[in-house]
Amino acid sequence: MRPSRRAPDELRPVSLERGVVKYAEGSCLVKFGDTHVLVTATLEDRLPPWLKGQGRGWITAEYGMLPRATLERTRREASAGKQTGRTVEIQRLIGRSLRTAIDLEALGERQITVDCDVLQADGGTRTASITGAWVALADCIKWMKTRNMLKTEVLRANVAAISCGIYNGTPVLDLDYAEDSEAETDANFVMTGDGRIIEVQGTAEKTPFTEAEFLALMALARKGVARLVDLQKMAVA
Amino acid sequence: MRPSRRAPDELRPVSLERGVVKYAEGSCLVKFGDTHVLVTATLEDRLPPWLKGQGRGWITAEYGMLPRATLERTRREASAGKQTGRTVEIQRLIGRSLRTAIDLEALGERQITVDCDVLQADGGTRTASITGAWVALADCIKWMKTRNMLKTEVLRANVAAISCGIYNGTPVLDLDYAEDSEAETDANFVMTGDGRIIEVQGTAEKTPFTEAEFLALMALARKGVARLVDLQKMAVA
Amino acid sequence: MRPSRRAPDELRPVSLERGVVKYAEGSCLVKFGDTHVLVTATLEDRLPPWLKGQGRGWITAEYGMLPRATLERTRREASAGKQTGRTVEIQRLIGRSLRTAIDLEALGERQITVDCDVLQADGGTRTASITGAWVALADCIKWMKTRNMLKTEVLRANVAAISCGIYNGTPVLDLDYAEDSEAETDANFVMTGDGRIIEVQGTAEKTPFTEAEFLALMALARKGVARLVDLQKMAVA
Amino acid sequence: MRPSRRAPDELRPVSLERGVVKYAEGSCLVKFGDTHVLVTATLEDRLPPWLKGQGRGWITAEYGMLPRATLERTRREASAGKQTGRTVEIQRLIGRSLRTAIDLEALGERQITVDCDVLQADGGTRTASITGAWVALADCIKWMKTRNMLKTEVLRANVAAISCGIYNGTPVLDLDYAEDSEAETDANFVMTGDGRIIEVQGTAEKTPFTEAEFLALMALARKGVARLVDLQKMAVA
Amino acid sequence: MRPSRRAPDELRPVSLERGVVKYAEGSCLVKFGDTHVLVTATLEDRLPPWLKGQGRGWITAEYGMLPRATLERTRREASAGKQTGRTVEIQRLIGRSLRTAIDLEALGERQITVDCDVLQADGGTRTASITGAWVALADCIKWMKTRNMLKTEVLRANVAAISCGIYNGTPVLDLDYAEDSEAETDANFVMTGDGRIIEVQGTAEKTPFTEAEFLALMALARKGVARLVDLQKMAVA
Amino acid sequence: MRPSRRAPDELRPVSLERGVVKYAEGSCLVKFGDTHVLVTATLEDRLPPWLKGQGRGWITAEYGMLPRATLERTRREASAGKQTGRTVEIQRLIGRSLRTAIDLEALGERQITVDCDVLQADGGTRTASITGAWVALADCIKWMKTRNMLKTEVLRANVAAISCGIYNGTPVLDLDYAEDSEAETDANFVMTGDGRIIEVQGTAEKTPFTEAEFLALMALARKGVARLVDLQKMAVA
Repeated sequence: MRPSRRAPDELRPVSLERGVVKYAEGSCLVKFGDTHVLVTATLEDRLPPWLKGQGRGWITAEYGMLPRATLERTRREASAGKQTGRTVEIQRLIGRSLRTAIDLEALGERQITVDCDVLQADGGTRTASITGAWVALADCIKWMKTRNMLKTEVLRANVAAISCGIYNGTPVLDLDYAEDSEAETDANFVMTGDGRIIEVQGTAEKTPFTEAEFLALMALARKGVARLVDLQKMAVA
Repeated sequence: MRPSRRAPDELRPVSLERGVVKYAEGSCLVKFGDTHVLVTATLEDRLPPWLKGQGRGWITAEYGMLPRATLERTRREASAGKQTGRTVEIQRLIGRSLRTAIDLEALGERQITVDCDVLQADGGTRTASITGAWVALADCIKWMKTRNMLKTEVLRANVAAISCGIYNGTPVLDLDYAEDSEAETDANFVMTGDGRIIEVQGTAEKTPFTEAEFLALMALARKGVARLVDLQKMAVA
Repeated sequence: MRPSRRAPDELRPVSLERGVVKYAEGSCLVKFGDTHVLVTATLEDRLPPWLKGQGRGWITAEYGMLPRATLERTRREASAGKQTGRTVEIQRLIGRSLRTAIDLEALGERQITVDCDVLQADGGTRTASITGAWVALADCIKWMKTRNMLKTEVLRANVAAISCGIYNGTPVLDLDYAEDSEAETDANFVMTGDGRIIEVQGTAEKTPFTEAEFLALMALARKGVARLVDLQKMAVA
Repeated sequence: MRPSRRAPDELRPVSLERGVVKYAEGSCLVKFGDTHVLVTATLEDRLPPWLKGQGRGWITAEYGMLPRATLERTRREASAGKQTGRTVEIQRLIGRSLRTAIDLEALGERQITVDCDVLQADGGTRTASITGAWVALADCIKWMKTRNMLKTEVLRANVAAISCGIYNGTPVLDLDYAEDSEAETDANFVMTGDGRIIEVQGTAEKTPFTEAEFLALMALARKGVARLVDLQKMAVA
Repeated sequence: MRPSRRAPDELRPVSLERGVVKYAEGSCLVKFGDTHVLVTATLEDRLPPWLKGQGRGWITAEYGMLPRATLERTRREASAGKQTGRTVEIQRLIGRSLRTAIDLEALGERQITVDCDVLQADGGTRTASITGAWVALADCIKWMKTRNMLKTEVLRANVAAISCGIYNGTPVLDLDYAEDSEAETDANFVMTGDGRIIEVQGTAEKTPFTEAEFLALMALARKGVARLVDLQKMAVA
Repeated sequence: MRPSRRAPDELRPVSLERGVVKYAEGSCLVKFGDTHVLVTATLEDRLPPWLKGQGRGWITAEYGMLPRATLERTRREASAGKQTGRTVEIQRLIGRSLRTAIDLEALGERQITVDCDVLQADGGTRTASITGAWVALADCIKWMKTRNMLKTEVLRANVAAISCGIYNGTPVLDLDYAEDSEAETDANFVMTGDGRIIEVQGTAEKTPFTEAEFLALMALARKGVARLVDLQKMAVA
C-alpha cells in the first residue's frame, strides 16, 4: 500500500495552468500533487557565443527551489554563492530534454530560457519541471507564431517526464517524497507521447536491480507519460 | 493623472493570503496589484554565532526575485554566484524592520528566517515584502503559541510599509513600476499602525526635495500604512 | 551629557584636506573627529556598458575599511572574497548622493569613480565619506576645467551628509561610535547647502519614533550640513 | 564501420594498473584506449557532518580533467573558480555507483574519497573512472584488511561501467570520442558483474529512441561489463 | 644618472611614524619617498586551527593597495572577489620575513596579524611594508610588555627590506617606479641589521644575470638595510 | 648523512620523457626521484587583452597538484573554488622563468600555455616543473617549426631549476620532502646552462643565513643545473 493510497500506476492529481506570469512569453504553473513548480519561458535574440552564426537557436534551462519549498529550510543558493550539484544536474537534464522536442534550425538564431522554480517540493520536482516546461515552451512558441516570427513548425513532439520506483517491492508510478526517500530503486523517464525515450536515468539506491525490474518501471512510465501528454494537449488547446 | 488612474492617495488592490505553503511555520502570498511576493517564515532553534547565549532571539530576512518576475529577464543570482547590491540592501531593510516589531527577549533563543521571493514585480516589491512578512511572522508566532513555545506576547506592533513619490509634481501613494521609473522623488516608509516610524528612506532621483514635500509624502504613507495594517489584522484574525 | 561633552548641535572637529594623493585627479582626506576617510576621484573615459552612447557620464563610488580601522580587527573583504552587505549599502548611497550633485550630461561620456577608504572609524563613516567625496569630486572637476575638458558647469550644488540620533532622549548631531551604539534612533541626511534633501535614511533601533522626533533630527541635520558646506567651500577655494 | 575498425561489441584495449601512486591507500591507472584516468582512494577517519554518529561510513568521489587532456585546452577549473556542471554531474555519478558496491555499515565511521583525474580524454572518461575506481577502492580495502581495520567483508560486488550508443544506425559498445560526437543515442551503464543495474543513463542526442533500441544497448553493455569485471578480478588478484 | 638624481647607493627619504592609528596594538606609517604604506599590528588570542595547542604563536600578514594608490586606478580586490597573484605573493613574503624576526614560542599561543595597506605606490611597496611592519610589530610587543603579557624577549632581530636592481647597467639601491619598470634585473632582500639574509628574491626581467652582478646588488642591499635598521631603532626608541 | 644517502651534490634520478600526451603541441613527464610532474604546452592564437597588437607573444603557466599527490590528501582547488597562495606563487614563478628563455618577438602574436600538474610530490615540484616545462616548450617550438610557423630561433637558452638547502649544517642539492621539511635554509635557483641566473629565491626557515652560506648553495645549484641542462639536451635531441 502506497502512503498516498494511490494505485501503483496512478499519478498524483496533475494540473498545468498557463499564462500565470504577466511578463513572460510563456509560462506554466505545474502541480504534481503537492509539488508545485512555476515555469517561465523567456525569448531572447542573443545566443551563447559558441553558437553564433550557425543558423540555429538554443533552449537552455535553469532550476531553483525557494528556500522553504522543502520540509526543512534549504540554504538559498544565491546567498551561498553557488548552485548545488543537484541543481546543476537537474537543470542540465531539463535543457537536454527540451532541446530534443524542438527543431533548433526552425527556431532561428534565438534562445529560449526556461526557468523552473519550485514553490513547494514533495518529490518529482524534475519531472514536474520538464512536463510544465514543455507547456511554457509551447506557450512561448504560440506567442512567436502570433507575431509571425516562425516560418515552420518548431515543436517536434510533446515531451513529458515521470518518475517510477520500486517501493516495498512493487513498481509504482510518480513517487512522492514519502515514497522517494524509501524506494529501493528510482528512475526518471523523459519520453514523447508515443512512448519513445528522450532521457532515462535509473539509480539503485541500495541493491542493484534487474533488467526485468527496469522494464516494469519503463512500462509504468510509458503509461504515465501518455496521460501527461494528454493533459499537455488539453492545456495548450 | 496616474497611469493606473488611481487617486493620489489610493493603494493598489492589496491581498494578504495566509498558509499558502505546506511546510513553513508561517507564510503569506502578498499582492500589491501586479506585484506578487511569496513570503515564508521558518523557525529554527539555532542562532547566529555572535548571538548565542544572550537569552535573545533573532529575525533575519532574505529576498530574491524569480528571473522572469520582471519585464525583461534578470540574471539568476544563484547562477551569477552572488546577490546584487540591490538585493542585499532590501533584505537588510526587511530584517531591521521586522526586528523592531518583535520582542526578541520574549522570542527566546530561536531564529525566524523570513524569505521573500518575488514571483512578479510591478514596483514596490520591498514594501509588499515587509507588509506580507509581518503576516507570515504573525502566522509563525501563532504556530508557536499553539505549541506552548512562548510565555509572553512577542509581537509588539503591526508593521507595514509603503512607497510614496512625487509623480508629475503630485505626491502619490504606492508607486507602480510605471510611476516609479518616472518619479522625481521616491520614498519608502516602514511604520506601525499608529503612524510611528520604523524606517524611512527618501531619495531624490534628479532634483533635491524640500522638507514640505517630504512631509506630504509622509502624510500619504501614514494613511496607506493604516489601511495596510487593517488588512493585516483581517488576514490574521 | 554626550560622552564627548559636545553640545547637542555641535559637530566634531572637521577637516577637509585636498590633494593628499599624488596620482588621483581629485582627492580629499576627510576627518570628522577620529573618523578618517581617504577619498580619491578617478576620471576615466570608459562607461558602464548600459550607459554607452547616451551622451551622459556617470559617477560611481566604492567604499572600504582598512581591517584595523575599527576597535577590533574586521576581516579584509578582499580576503573574504566578497563585500559585506553594509559595504554594498554604503557605496550605493554615496554614488546616488553624488550623482544628484552633478549634471551628468554636462560631464560628457566619462566616468568618475570615487573611492572612499576608511583609515580610522569612530562613527559616521558614510557621512564623512559623502562630505569628503564632494570635495574630491570638485577637485577632479577643477582638474578637468584646467584641461578644457568641460564646456559648462558640471557641479550643480554642494552636497554634504551628517548623522543625527536620539541619544538619552535628546536629539544630537554627528554621532560618534560611543553614541551610535547606544542611540535609540539613528538617521543619516544627505543635503544641499540650502537645506534641500537628497537622501534621508532613518532607522528606529529599538522603539519606533514619531514625526516630531524625526523633524527635530532633520532640523539639526540642516544646521550641520550648512556648516559642512561652509567648510567645503573653504576647502575648494 | 566504426572509425576505430572495432567490431560493434568490441571494447577498446583496457588496462587496469594498480599501485601507481606512492602515498594513496589505493590507486589505479585505468586506460580505455586513449582515455587515461588516474584514480586514487584516500581513507580518512573523518565523516561529513550530517553522517556523524550513525555507525556508517561514506564513499565520495571527485573528478577532474587536466587542462590539456582534451583536443583543445579546457580552462582549469581551479583557476576558473568553479567546477563545471559536467564535472559535478560526473562526480556525483561516480560516488553513487561506488556506494552501491560497498557495505557502508561494515566500513565503519570512515570516509573513502576517490579522486578520478583524467590525464587524456578520448571518450568514456566517466565509465573508465568508475571501472578504475572500483579497483582503487578494492586496493584501499585490501590495505585496511592488512591492518585489521575491518571485521567483515565490505565489498559487496564488482562494479564496472561502459558506454554504448547508436552509431550510424548500429548499436556499438564503448564509444570513443569520434563516435561519441556523432552518435544519435548515447547511454552509460553501471552494472555488477552478474548484469544487474546500478545506474543507467540514456540520452537521445537528436531523435528519441525506442525501447528495442535501448534494450540492444543494454545487452551490449552487459557483455562489456562482464569483460571489464573479469579484468578487475585479474587486476586485484 | 638615476631619474631621481640619487646616488646609486642612496635610499629615498625614509620615514617611520609610529602610533598613527588609534585602535591598533601597533602601527606605523612608513614612507620610502612617494611610496606610503600604513601598517597595523593586531594582537589576537586565537590561532589558526592547525597551530592550536603547540605552545607557539603565529605572525601572519595581509597586504592591499587602495585602488588609486597607483598611476592608473587598479580594480578593488574586494569588489573583484579575489586577491591577485601579486597580492598573495607579497603577503606571504611579509609573513615569512616577520616570523623569522620573532621567537614564536616566547610569543605564546597568540597571533599577531600585520596589515600593510598601500596608500600611495611608487615602487618598493613590499620592502617598505616589511620595514614598517617590523616597527608596528615592535610597537605591538611593547604594548604587550606594558601589560606584562610576555616573560622573555620576543623580538630576535631587526628585520628590514630593500630592493636593488641593475638600471642602465649600474647596480642601484631602492628602485622607484620609474627605475623598476626599466630595470634589467630586480632583487628584493630581507635582512637583519648585521647583514644576514632572511629572504632573497632576484629576477632577470630580460637577460639572465651573473653571480657577480648579484653580489653587487647584495652588497648594496646590505648597506641599505643597515641604514633602515638604524632608522627603525630611532623610531622605536 | 642525507635520508636518501645521496652525496651533498647529488641529484635524485631525473627523467624527462617527451610526447607523453596525445593532443598537446608539446609535453613532458618529468621525474625528480618520486616527484612526478606532467607538463603540457598548448599553442593558441589568442593573447591576453593587454598584449594585443604589440607584435609579441606570451608564455604563461598554470600549476596544480592532484589531491593525492601528497602524503595526506590536499583539498582539490577546483572544489574549494580558489587556488591557494602557494599555487599562485609557483605558477607565476614558472611563467616568469620560461619567458626569459624565449624571444617573445620571434614567437609572434601567439600564446603558449604551460600546464604543470603534479602527479606525485616528494619535494621540488616547482623546480621539476620548470625543468620539464622547458622540454615541453622546446617540443612545442619544434612542432611549430615543422609547420613553418617561425622565421627565426625562438629559444634563447636552456632553462632549468633546482633547489638547495642547508640540511644538518651541510649545503645539499635537490632537497626531497624529508630534507625540505627539516632544512634550516631553502633556496630555489632558476638558471641557464652556462650558470647565469634567471630567478633566485632563498628563505631562512628559522635562522637568517650568511652570504657565504648562500654562495655555497649557489655553487651547488650551478652544478645541478648544468647536469639538468645536459639531460634536457638529450631529451630534445
